[in-house]
Amino acid sequence: MKQDASGPAGTIDGLEIRPAGEPARAAVVSVGSELLLGDLVDTNAAWVSSKLRDMGVEVVHHVAVRDDTEEFVEVLAWLAERVHVIVCGGGLGPTSDDRTRAAIAAAAGVALEHHDDLEEAILQRFASMGRRMPPQNAKQAGIPRGARPFPPVGTAPGFALTLASPKPTRVYALPGVPWELQQLFHRDVAPELQALAGARATVTRVVHVIGMGESDVAQVVEPIAGDRDGVTLSYLARSHEIQVRLTVSADDVGAARGASQPLLDEVIDALGGAVAGLDDEQLEDVVLRLLGDRGETVATAESATAGDIAARLGAVPGASHGLVGGMVVYDTEIKHDVLGVDRELLDEHGPVSEAVTRAIAQLARERFGADWGIGVTGCAGPTEQNGQPVGTAFWALAHPDGHVEVHGRQIPGDRGQIIKRLGSAGLDLLRRRLQER
Amino acid sequence: MKQDASGPAGTIDGLEIRPAGEPARAAVVSVGSELLLGDLVDTNAAWVSSKLRDMGVEVVHHVAVRDDTEEFVEVLAWLAERVHVIVCGGGLGPTSDDRTRAAIAAAAGVALEHHDDLEEAILQRFASMGRRMPPQNAKQAGIPRGARPFPPVGTAPGFALTLASPKPTRVYALPGVPWELQQLFHRDVAPELQALAGARATVTRVVHVIGMGESDVAQVVEPIAGDRDGVTLSYLARSHEIQVRLTVSADDVGAARGASQPLLDEVIDALGGAVAGLDDEQLEDVVLRLLGDRGETVATAESATAGDIAARLGAVPGASHGLVGGMVVYDTEIKHDVLGVDRELLDEHGPVSEAVTRAIAQLARERFGADWGIGVTGCAGPTEQNGQPVGTAFWALAHPDGHVEVHGRQIPGDRGQIIKRLGSAGLDLLRRRLQER
Repeated sequence: MKQDASGPAGTIDGLEIRPAGEPARAAVVSVGSELLLGDLVDTNAAWVSSKLRDMGVEVVHHVAVRDDTEEFVEVLAWLAERVHVIVCGGGLGPTSDDRTRAAIAAAAGVALEHHDDLEEAILQRFASMGRRMPPQNAKQAGIPRGARPFPPVGTAPGFALTLASPKPTRVYALPGVPWELQQLFHRDVAPELQALAGARATVTRVVHVIGMGESDVAQVVEPIAGDRDGVTLSYLARSHEIQVRLTVSADDVGAARGASQPLLDEVIDALGGAVAGLDDEQLEDVVLRLLGDRGETVATAESATAGDIAARLGAVPGASHGLVGGMVVYDTEIKHDVLGVDRELLDEHGPVSEAVTRAIAQLARERFGADWGIGVTGCAGPTEQNGQPVGTAFWALAHPDGHVEVHGRQIPGDRGQIIKRLGSAGLDLLRRRLQER
Repeated sequence: MKQDASGPAGTIDGLEIRPAGEPARAAVVSVGSELLLGDLVDTNAAWVSSKLRDMGVEVVHHVAVRDDTEEFVEVLAWLAERVHVIVCGGGLGPTSDDRTRAAIAAAAGVALEHHDDLEEAILQRFASMGRRMPPQNAKQAGIPRGARPFPPVGTAPGFALTLASPKPTRVYALPGVPWELQQLFHRDVAPELQALAGARATVTRVVHVIGMGESDVAQVVEPIAGDRDGVTLSYLARSHEIQVRLTVSADDVGAARGASQPLLDEVIDALGGAVAGLDDEQLEDVVLRLLGDRGETVATAESATAGDIAARLGAVPGASHGLVGGMVVYDTEIKHDVLGVDRELLDEHGPVSEAVTRAIAQLARERFGADWGIGVTGCAGPTEQNGQPVGTAFWALAHPDGHVEVHGRQIPGDRGQIIKRLGSAGLDLLRRRLQER
């Protein structure tokens, strides 16, 4: 993860935050007892980290703290010895469990100071929603003395402050609501940080692999990318895929991407048809891109996945060029009554079967007038269904020429995993056939 | 968040991990550079925390560390001064970026020791998947001397070890793949921790509120629950709801739930129809429960949400009693050709309109023979559609008596948020009508 250091020192208000020649290092602090109680998954830390990475800032730690001023101050002190920048998300609301203002003021050894213009901005935010500001929200306008205020985009202002000891450390306080955090980060934090970091950018290229185990992927990739200078290689096993990750540093994002490209091409070539996507491209993005390239369309008929395949496609911006529509045929009778599966087929083979899956894929293609039809059936659990064990699954693809291929296997996992994996199996089958054409 | 301390000391192998009278305190460490690069959202920390909470263990911090042995050791040292128990997830794989074994050994000042029986267990795991163990996986059988091994359920073994200094601290190392972590936690960690904690249990009751702002919710709830002894009140604003959270401690989970119930009832009563669910119950769980109570069914016709409403219902175990099926009518022609919307209606009002939304809800109910029909249309972006701005949205509910109600408004947010919020609007409308009957 080491980068070449670069550039002159990064200073703010005459204080040297990042010494010359050191790469910028940061920590992300997520605030809120609900995180430590396990009631909320922290998505802000990953979001902030990816933005910092693009600016060439190394994120060293994520730390989550409870709504406890003392514990929060301890964390700030520990991190201030290790990083140049601390980005905090959460704890800026109007209620008594919101401790970020007090904790950062205590860490800096300063008092809170009320900003009339921030209170006015909060009032206006409420007014713009047609509401009156509740009196307790006024305290959100009290931020540490000397802090640079960030006017609210929701109702919570943020701020930036430099801790003087043990060395100058820049601390950013942002609201915990993701869209508010993101807007304040872009508007107020990013420009300042960009100047502060003055560093090389790091880019991670990701190859998404479906249909191979982690060790098998490694055996293909290690000889190509395992020992390249300036390249960090890692693997990430996800429920339905293996990610091969190549991290490269350069002067800016464009150069880093350029430097990674030849290696990326080699890896893709070696992995062949198992490559389901690159970087941020999900399987569904790839499917829609390939359909778009060919001017073709798909329709779905889903039993066990209950619309999840269509919804995954529909979540992609511009999906309408490739997704025509689909049918959720959850109930057995519906497969006959609405989609038109032969009743004899249903009676003879049962709803979760190769024959019925073949039929619904074909009917999806025909009824919706699409080029391709995906059909899936399965038993997602939690209990067996018509005598078939949990995980029994079939997926079929109706091709433009009318022929239909069907696949089936036992899919491991819980109900949620089976639904996602079965949907991915259907989508990946289409992806492979589109890439072969 | 303070609990009454309780019980005698918690010891393991004669070492006092938790002194008598102290509540058990823990930290969760998530390992992997992909977390710090922002490429993966950490779901393990929340999962482990909720399990620890149920055992009466307070989780004080989550910390994420990179694949860097030195940084990892520093974090362990810092945490060992603050908590009794550290649960680590990730970094146990066979590749060079897996540092958990080395870091914990270094923190404890011991060497790694190869366990032949663990290697045999890994071999067998591969054999059970019909694969041969790649040679590099053998190193996963090397764990710190003195550690208690946890045989693998995937291919990575875990272990437990007590750090002697600065005071005895129990460290658990689990694989990062969620289902492996979860199975090892249940099988190997939970029984040991239960004995170690010997503590009171903490329960958080959650009231999900849809259709009110945070401050308005607080104005209703504060007078009831704001100042009760032994109750911690907090609020969590999510994209489509506000959560009211009441945390109560007692000798065990059952007693804590019992103690929270009268207060919970008061809060629910005061919030009235805005209460969309309790605790882990999502909106879709509530809808299916209410449908089940009445022996009624629902079908959907979805344009902008592209199947997401049906998929949310289908994700609930046992959904088939309430969800009949649905239609994804993404393409405008399909609304006519497959679902049967009048072409004049489409031409006159456009596909995203009150009139068409009313029609598709009604047709969903009729075509699928369901008691209720939900129809939604909208413009989810990223660009305007047929001259309508991003966020334009309509949702309709066809009632069992055949009448249809339609609602519409501008929904804020990005494409993903608009899809989720529009789906929630449709589901919440059904939820309210079911609760009124």
